[in-house]
Amino acid sequence: MRIGVLTAGGDCPGLNAVIRSVVHRAVVGHGDEVIGFEDGFKGLLERRYRKLDLDAVSGILSRGGTILGSARLERGRLDEACDHAEELCGELGLDALLPIGGEGTLTAARMLSDAGMPVVGVPKTIDNDISATDRTFGFDTAVGVATEALDRLKTTAESHQRIMVVEVMGRHAGWIALESGMAGGAHGICLPERPFQLDKLCEMIEERFSRGKKFAVVCVAEGAHPAEGSMPYEKGRIDQYGHERFTGIGNRLAAELERRIGKEARPVILGHVQRGGTPTAFDRVLATRFGWHAVEAAHRREFGMMTALRGNDIRLVPLAEAVSELKTVPEHRMREAESVY
Amino acid sequence: MRIGVLTAGGDCPGLNAVIRSVVHRAVVGHGDEVIGFEDGFKGLLERRYRKLDLDAVSGILSRGGTILGSARLERGRLDEACDHAEELCGELGLDALLPIGGEGTLTAARMLSDAGMPVVGVPKTIDNDISATDRTFGFDTAVGVATEALDRLKTTAESHQRIMVVEVMGRHAGWIALESGMAGGAHGICLPERPFQLDKLCEMIEERFSRGKKFAVVCVAEGAHPAEGSMPYEKGRIDQYGHERFTGIGNRLAAELERRIGKEARPVILGHVQRGGTPTAFDRVLATRFGWHAVEAAHRREFGMMTALRGNDIRLVPLAEAVSELKTVPEHRMREAESVY
Amino acid sequence: MRIGVLTAGGDCPGLNAVIRSVVHRAVVGHGDEVIGFEDGFKGLLERRYRKLDLDAVSGILSRGGTILGSARLERGRLDEACDHAEELCGELGLDALLPIGGEGTLTAARMLSDAGMPVVGVPKTIDNDISATDRTFGFDTAVGVATEALDRLKTTAESHQRIMVVEVMGRHAGWIALESGMAGGAHGICLPERPFQLDKLCEMIEERFSRGKKFAVVCVAEGAHPAEGSMPYEKGRIDQYGHERFTGIGNRLAAELERRIGKEARPVILGHVQRGGTPTAFDRVLATRFGWHAVEAAHRREFGMMTALRGNDIRLVPLAEAVSELKTVPEHRMREAESVY
Amino acid sequence: MRIGVLTAGGDCPGLNAVIRSVVHRAVVGHGDEVIGFEDGFKGLLERRYRKLDLDAVSGILSRGGTILGSARLERGRLDEACDHAEELCGELGLDALLPIGGEGTLTAARMLSDAGMPVVGVPKTIDNDISATDRTFGFDTAVGVATEALDRLKTTAESHQRIMVVEVMGRHAGWIALESGMAGGAHGICLPERPFQLDKLCEMIEERFSRGKKFAVVCVAEGAHPAEGSMPYEKGRIDQYGHERFTGIGNRLAAELERRIGKEARPVILGHVQRGGTPTAFDRVLATRFGWHAVEAAHRREFGMMTALRGNDIRLVPLAEAVSELKTVPEHRMREAESVY
Repeated sequence: MRIGVLTAGGDCPGLNAVIRSVVHRAVVGHGDEVIGFEDGFKGLLERRYRKLDLDAVSGILSRGGTILGSARLERGRLDEACDHAEELCGELGLDALLPIGGEGTLTAARMLSDAGMPVVGVPKTIDNDISATDRTFGFDTAVGVATEALDRLKTTAESHQRIMVVEVMGRHAGWIALESGMAGGAHGICLPERPFQLDKLCEMIEERFSRGKKFAVVCVAEGAHPAEGSMPYEKGRIDQYGHERFTGIGNRLAAELERRIGKEARPVILGHVQRGGTPTAFDRVLATRFGWHAVEAAHRREFGMMTALRGNDIRLVPLAEAVSELKTVPEHRMREAESVY
Repeated sequence: MRIGVLTAGGDCPGLNAVIRSVVHRAVVGHGDEVIGFEDGFKGLLERRYRKLDLDAVSGILSRGGTILGSARLERGRLDEACDHAEELCGELGLDALLPIGGEGTLTAARMLSDAGMPVVGVPKTIDNDISATDRTFGFDTAVGVATEALDRLKTTAESHQRIMVVEVMGRHAGWIALESGMAGGAHGICLPERPFQLDKLCEMIEERFSRGKKFAVVCVAEGAHPAEGSMPYEKGRIDQYGHERFTGIGNRLAAELERRIGKEARPVILGHVQRGGTPTAFDRVLATRFGWHAVEAAHRREFGMMTALRGNDIRLVPLAEAVSELKTVPEHRMREAESVY
Repeated sequence: MRIGVLTAGGDCPGLNAVIRSVVHRAVVGHGDEVIGFEDGFKGLLERRYRKLDLDAVSGILSRGGTILGSARLERGRLDEACDHAEELCGELGLDALLPIGGEGTLTAARMLSDAGMPVVGVPKTIDNDISATDRTFGFDTAVGVATEALDRLKTTAESHQRIMVVEVMGRHAGWIALESGMAGGAHGICLPERPFQLDKLCEMIEERFSRGKKFAVVCVAEGAHPAEGSMPYEKGRIDQYGHERFTGIGNRLAAELERRIGKEARPVILGHVQRGGTPTAFDRVLATRFGWHAVEAAHRREFGMMTALRGNDIRLVPLAEAVSELKTVPEHRMREAESVY
Repeated sequence: MRIGVLTAGGDCPGLNAVIRSVVHRAVVGHGDEVIGFEDGFKGLLERRYRKLDLDAVSGILSRGGTILGSARLERGRLDEACDHAEELCGELGLDALLPIGGEGTLTAARMLSDAGMPVVGVPKTIDNDISATDRTFGFDTAVGVATEALDRLKTTAESHQRIMVVEVMGRHAGWIALESGMAGGAHGICLPERPFQLDKLCEMIEERFSRGKKFAVVCVAEGAHPAEGSMPYEKGRIDQYGHERFTGIGNRLAAELERRIGKEARPVILGHVQRGGTPTAFDRVLATRFGWHAVEAAHRREFGMMTALRGNDIRLVPLAEAVSELKTVPEHRMREAESVY
């Protein structure tokens, strides 16, 4: 079999682990040939690829990023690819294509699949917001990085009687804020899923100080926003999902808390460090398993599917199902994080 | 409500996170009183306990070990506790007891529950071998420590053309070896669940060297053992599960590989570092959720149950089910780790 | 002997290690009594202190921040303290005061010493800019945090063909930028000590891309600024040292590089994570030694002095010398970092 | 100029950073050509080398081990090399040779230098025992790994009321034990430099327990040994330095402490994890500077010298001086670690 693999969308720790696993399983387990397309679907369309043998993936398991590169593809070019899907496969001798990516990539994968390309998708998102799988790799690493930052900030906040506002990734889904906030013991957690009440946040922090505590830490997703009227602000723009979006909620929230509570408040915007670097063991295992099962699915000719974690098992689920809706933080998960003082 | 909490059995990262979460949820969420028994069931029997308020659990979320201490209890004294279960609760004014522990502890919890004590168990095992829950906290931390060690050892092994044999925890279940072996890219993984073929292991390593690779790493669970006749050894003793047990499989395997393959082989026995120290974010979140749900279960008077992770949700399962059988690594999980060269 | 200890100025990892070491050496080694003043010199003036025995410092060696708190003191109140220095010592029964702090604190310490107070200072600055000592604790931890961030960012930068601009601490001295830049393999390093030439920076980055490299990382100290005319900017304010200061050089530099080079450039502002959290082993050892030697100096009645690292040894140097000039990055150290492509 | 570089002796984190720095400085700074010999001096004698350009050293700064490999050389072959030193250089067109290694390597380097080879040595030892330099790279990483292990072990020891005995590297010099012991807050530290008194160690630990403390941690160098008569033992063998040597002091000490004190004691032998993996920022900076200065020395034709850290500066010192005596832990450094309870 000749298997193509590519990585598309924002990078996230574990991509290389999938690539390596695909090569190991395909080459060693089945005697396949594997080629890797450069810079996502672009490389597919432009026939930019290289052969991936065991040596090509040696030492990459623990490396962040993607050895294949990643890039966005305009919609027009995707349509073009769909129009020539079978032709493309014929020309390249591709028996299966394994695109690794997030919602956009999996939607593209589904279109290519519908157009006749033999596709098995591998889900990837740092935000953990794909509904068909319990977890995606990269998320655990991001949560780990954010949690370590919260741990560090607590000690300095305490020494100076400060409020720390930590802005983490998560535009539409607040999983990173929820889990790093819980793991790092944040006293307030603000998610995109539910507008936060600034008054309540202030009240809780003031109560902490009144109990003799010397600091407070708030973990806020970049996509979080205050409830209407709860925080004076210039009206933000409306994004494609109909959510109001701000740039810099972390900075603005810190300024507002300082003003209201009268204690120093400092924002920390974690940014890209959350998506780089060595993946955690959890992410490496999940990525490796996804790669292994994607190859097996290709050999069973289960196309139009995507690997997914369900409990402890890896399952194949239809791509259509995978991209039908965003997995956001449900109400009952928010409640679990509420009693943390 | 007056809730008692105790930690029993071997310690593991996340115990303090459970204790903290129980206190937060009970005190802040319900206005309960929480007491912590010292040194496991011993403290219960000997009425050694202290009140746990918010201050008592401040700062312990990220700390390994258990602030309550832990100790083994002889069977005789447990029977004694069962005989006086209701009396004991009455005397202490206990409305619920939340024991946090592994298989032994949960079995004791079940006995106390059968004897009339209002018990909600919280499972804990570094080995991840409790069948009723997808994961237990502590396991992710242990796998992380072992994976970091494997990462470190690879570079030194490569520089000196050596074979490294890393012995990790796992007497009866090989989950730590499996996952750290996969995450750390071990070339051979030996689990207690299936006697390993020394010949096959040697063959695989020799093939690696013949391909120009300069090192090999083997990850072996402390409870792993060679297939009958595959490795000359003095007969080991038979343990309570009918498995043959050795002390020091890591040392013995390294010696044997060196002898057969003719390359330097070095054993590293990770030991107790796997169970100490700061828990990972994953373990802190799981432990926190377990604590939260145990308190909720107590308030709903769902006794005789245990918290469990199923997919992304926390469920209550009967203690009886929880301890019925050991969760070992199934054949299909081993296969996923086999194509790693 | 009755020894007082206090921490003043910005916090930094290792403060608790000094406090612990002072208590251990004084109490165990000499049978002294130790008291800790809260919130720096404020606590001294306001007689807010507590006894520090072995239990009080148990477990703090690896904790960031300071258990004593830290706060700024207005100049007026310091003068007041100086006016009543001997009186204050008499009233409190103080035989020695060990203030731990940076340039401001040590200057205050010197004034108190001149006014008759028996003072032994312990230098502390995350910025490593005190000239009388080879290193200060906290600095190694900050460099470690920044280096880990650079490591992480490289993988994500490479996957997306980006330029990353990492802003680290350092208003007047660029040690953190220099050492984390070298350790993290930054391709450009901008320090406060020497205005950077934007043209040269662009040229170097463009040359990298032209050699087929897929990313570049620039490490910039918060106090760095472009050479006159090299980067269009609104004139910054002039600070007390006569340096022109900007807020947000990281953000501005990223925007400028993107504009000129035509590749995506992203800023990451590390901020307070650099000064919080567990100190590195190096910082714990240095802090512990400083504490030990400060107590010995007090017993030898070597007052008006400060502990300092010289090579591998701890020496006592006059406070006057310690605060005479800022230790900035010399030209020959910058040159060592220049050949890094 | 044509510069050769090689790594010899046991590997240690930072070797790759030196190699990279040599290449960067020589190629970019001077337009030199650099070749790397494989497996230490063996590669030199066997003419096994490869060209090292910028691409060859890309991405290795943070990687442990050595891309050039390392191996021991028999004395006979070294003499052979010395006999043909000038010839060898002529044949290979070598203008300078930069061997990176420990005491043995530097002694060989000196012999080659005496024989007419243009040599600049770079010192390397995880044990930090080369007297001519304040520090060697690799040591800080090893201390970091050992300290993290001590941190982890304390929590588990405390939960179970145990004594932990951690054996770290250091056959003849106890620097790793001293600094990781101090940084990790070990209650007893045993070094090769001074036979330890078992009675005193027991007394100290018992006093701790009597003060209500629940655990103790002892950090012991692999080369430490008990004072004559203080611990019953089979007579060890005498090594080349006239020291009595044991295998497994960690195991034996744990057994003995358990027997005497009557508390569970567990040994942990850290082993090779101490010398593998990503170097700390400190080690990367030191290694990078050593590489830079070695190239500069070669261009100034300062041969027969070795790079050394003195305070904050890199100096060149004669190889003869460097290897004249082992740098062991002096009495005054041991005293600094004594008041830790």
